[in-house]
Amino acid sequence: MNLIEKIRNVPDFPKAGIQFKDITTLLAEGDAFLHTIDLLAKRYESAGLTKVVGIESRGFIFGAALACKLGIGFVPVRKEGKLPSETIRRAYELEYGEAVVEIHSDALTSSDKVVIIDDLIATGGTLEAACELVDELGADIHEVWCLLELTFLNGRDKLKRWNVRAEIAVDSE
Amino acid sequence: MNLIEKIRNVPDFPKAGIQFKDITTLLAEGDAFLHTIDLLAKRYESAGLTKVVGIESRGFIFGAALACKLGIGFVPVRKEGKLPSETIRRAYELEYGEAVVEIHSDALTSSDKVVIIDDLIATGGTLEAACELVDELGADIHEVWCLLELTFLNGRDKLKRWNVRAEIAVDSE
Repeated sequence: MNLIEKIRNVPDFPKAGIQFKDITTLLAEGDAFLHTIDLLAKRYESAGLTKVVGIESRGFIFGAALACKLGIGFVPVRKEGKLPSETIRRAYELEYGEAVVEIHSDALTSSDKVVIIDDLIATGGTLEAACELVDELGADIHEVWCLLELTFLNGRDKLKRWNVRAEIAVDSE
Repeated sequence: MNLIEKIRNVPDFPKAGIQFKDITTLLAEGDAFLHTIDLLAKRYESAGLTKVVGIESRGFIFGAALACKLGIGFVPVRKEGKLPSETIRRAYELEYGEAVVEIHSDALTSSDKVVIIDDLIATGGTLEAACELVDELGADIHEVWCLLELTFLNGRDKLKRWNVRAEIAVDSE
């Protein structure tokens, strides 16, 4: 199955000139969604993972389905102010201003081995912040996985400290 | 397995006097998360569902895992401005101000039969708005499922038009 064919291009979102890669068309097709999660499960089933870390919000979709498939726990990395218990946090730069992601301080320990899941590598800021949070808790990051990578944004430059896998590379706007 | 024991009470979140029900402790335990998704899958496996609808963000976690388990597509209901293609929208009241949820206009048709998944029934506003969106697209809502219901907030009063299932009822603050 060619997953890129399941993804819809939406012109001019979120602003003029951007071809937004809309994964909701992939998710809506049971076969394509299952195929994606099966790919993930095969990739990681022998890695000895203890948890799947998913980044809010679309990383929750792939991450939770993978955790369920592997029969291991799921840990959310969330936007600021959403996690109720004690957290650690990282700020990162956006085009205008900054954003913050958080993880519960007790969500992972040095005994954990995880994959970090999101839908997209764009500029890499969110993923870098999420990886740093997981590093700070002492867990072993086996790999960072995203469905799509917008290679022309060079997000991987921020992610050289970790193993990164993108299922689909998109090399132009 | 008694799922309520897997949920952590966090005092004074998001404000003083509230005992927040933190589901991240359930998600983090592979057995408890799997047990929850197995409950869901057994409940719906013979219902002839065509899609699972999940409400951003925590509804994505249970909804996506269920869709994967059932081998059917997943449709997100998202906060305002997040879905890239044409949407329909509903505003609903919050304690202070209002919020908007959206669904892609082409996400469902009258041939679809769905469950709508979220983690929590509190005041019922988000779920009511989500159900109205799915109704507007003509899909058949087989049931609305939430892990937790804060019964003392009477959210079900807003949801009388639909079948509603909550796995765990919490009857006091």
